[in-house]
Amino acid sequence: MPEHARIAHKTLIEFIAAAYRAAGIPQADAAKAAELMAASDISGADGHGVFRLPQYIRRIKAGGLNTRPEITVIRQARAAAIVDGDNGLGSLVVARAVEEAIALAAENGVGWVGTRNGNHAGAAAVYAAMPVAHDMIGLYFAVGNANHLPPWGGVDMLLQQGKTMPEGWMIDRQGQPLTDPSRADDGFLLPIGGYKGAALALMFGLLAGTLNGAANGADVVDFNKDDTTPTNTGQAICVLDIKAFAEPLAFKRQVDAVIRQLHGSALLPGFDHIRLPGEDRHHRIAERRAYGIPIPPELRAALDKLATDLAIPPLFG
Amino acid sequence: MPEHARIAHKTLIEFIAAAYRAAGIPQADAAKAAELMAASDISGADGHGVFRLPQYIRRIKAGGLNTRPEITVIRQARAAAIVDGDNGLGSLVVARAVEEAIALAAENGVGWVGTRNGNHAGAAAVYAAMPVAHDMIGLYFAVGNANHLPPWGGVDMLLQQGKTMPEGWMIDRQGQPLTDPSRADDGFLLPIGGYKGAALALMFGLLAGTLNGAANGADVVDFNKDDTTPTNTGQAICVLDIKAFAEPLAFKRQVDAVIRQLHGSALLPGFDHIRLPGEDRHHRIAERRAYGIPIPPELRAALDKLATDLAIPPLFG
Repeated sequence: MPEHARIAHKTLIEFIAAAYRAAGIPQADAAKAAELMAASDISGADGHGVFRLPQYIRRIKAGGLNTRPEITVIRQARAAAIVDGDNGLGSLVVARAVEEAIALAAENGVGWVGTRNGNHAGAAAVYAAMPVAHDMIGLYFAVGNANHLPPWGGVDMLLQQGKTMPEGWMIDRQGQPLTDPSRADDGFLLPIGGYKGAALALMFGLLAGTLNGAANGADVVDFNKDDTTPTNTGQAICVLDIKAFAEPLAFKRQVDAVIRQLHGSALLPGFDHIRLPGEDRHHRIAERRAYGIPIPPELRAALDKLATDLAIPPLFG
Repeated sequence: MPEHARIAHKTLIEFIAAAYRAAGIPQADAAKAAELMAASDISGADGHGVFRLPQYIRRIKAGGLNTRPEITVIRQARAAAIVDGDNGLGSLVVARAVEEAIALAAENGVGWVGTRNGNHAGAAAVYAAMPVAHDMIGLYFAVGNANHLPPWGGVDMLLQQGKTMPEGWMIDRQGQPLTDPSRADDGFLLPIGGYKGAALALMFGLLAGTLNGAANGADVVDFNKDDTTPTNTGQAICVLDIKAFAEPLAFKRQVDAVIRQLHGSALLPGFDHIRLPGEDRHHRIAERRAYGIPIPPELRAALDKLATDLAIPPLFG
């Protein structure tokens, strides 16, 4: 992989906030949404961070996103709620839902909050990880708009880099492997695990979308192509308060013991280490905090154009 | 597939209850556990129903399962609880957990109940479906004892029928496909979806096992080989009360609309219909209610032997 120019986390947040403000989002919301977007970038979810900023701004300019939403919490039960995002930035809507779910879990041991009238919110891990600081566990669900979502890093990025997609990502309308990113519109993303993954995607769509009154199935708006129709995006977060089940420190020690066992496992031929979920993310955050976030030249060009359009200083000043 | 002799649902329940009673389980518990076991059989989860009865009875006789458990609910929060199964039959422990989670969800909109000191409980769908009768949604998690669980229908059944396993089910210690069921002990079951499925299995193990003080990782007992060590099996159930989010009838109508859209989807070459999760189960329940539950000859022989050992009337009287 080529070495890309890097930008400090703080500088990236300031650039995103400036773009949001220039697009009409009030200062406090712009600052919060910028932090949430850069949280995807710093953790290595490169297809979900600033890479999406030009698309978000395009939608705002086209009138498809509410820059001054009244985000409301609808609570009809003690430990459950719905957050109505009033078509605001997805990050602000989901962050509000997570805050509410953490409060509900603190009171009740578990809290479940769904969203509707939100938008694309960036990397799921950003939100699922938030409860951890409160000694809580987060489970995050989102409507799988699988026929619309570009693969990791975005089809555009693959195209700019002249790369193909590996087999198993997409199939075409004849069921054949589709590896040419320029043909992405002709095919469908495949779920993990064949029919079992398809069942999971359906279940998550019902929990994160239909249950909250958000779009699911044919109602899902392809936000990569349509900048004006409100997406009515739905997500759901379930938060468990560890102390309702176990003493948090003892629980963490037991989790560590399981992790150590897995790391101690014998390796299959062809593998040089055991990878566990969240570890790469953890290392990437440390590395990018220290050395900055790499910005490929194609992305830098797109962000330079955005800066010009919005009359804000460029990312690399 | 050969046509097997069939047995009425009610007759199967009576047989299982008689076996449990003969093994020392009190009458009411035997009746309830028999219903729960037969619920796997009638829905087509053939590897999780009466097929497991000889193994359960063997463990009871070996002293590895408590026939008179004191199942207790430990509640340290408003909407969350742990059920300690006192090493009783897994079905009774999990059913108690689901009942508690339904009660918690009725009060709070959501309820989360974990189990510990339970045992193998049969098909997950039996428990996940229980809340539906209350206009609630159930999500069920169990510790993935993947290196121990025989594939669907059991390795023994495949061996008796001279069948091999398809590639993708298991790999050997060199990472090569393992398809010979007689070599199952030399390999590992594969998760769905590669590393993503492995991450799901780890997460579910932490939620259903470690969080509840149940076995996970190296503590998991291989109950197919060890009849005496308490398994300390853990499960977890999350129940959502639909009316905390939406009007239940309206929600069901919207789910039906999504299902109809999916059924209306164009077919890929080589497919003659769209299969959705739960549909086969639904049809199988109706078919088996009407015509009985098929019992392959190998299973019938095993159950005849069990009946002789326990001095109870055989299944096919």
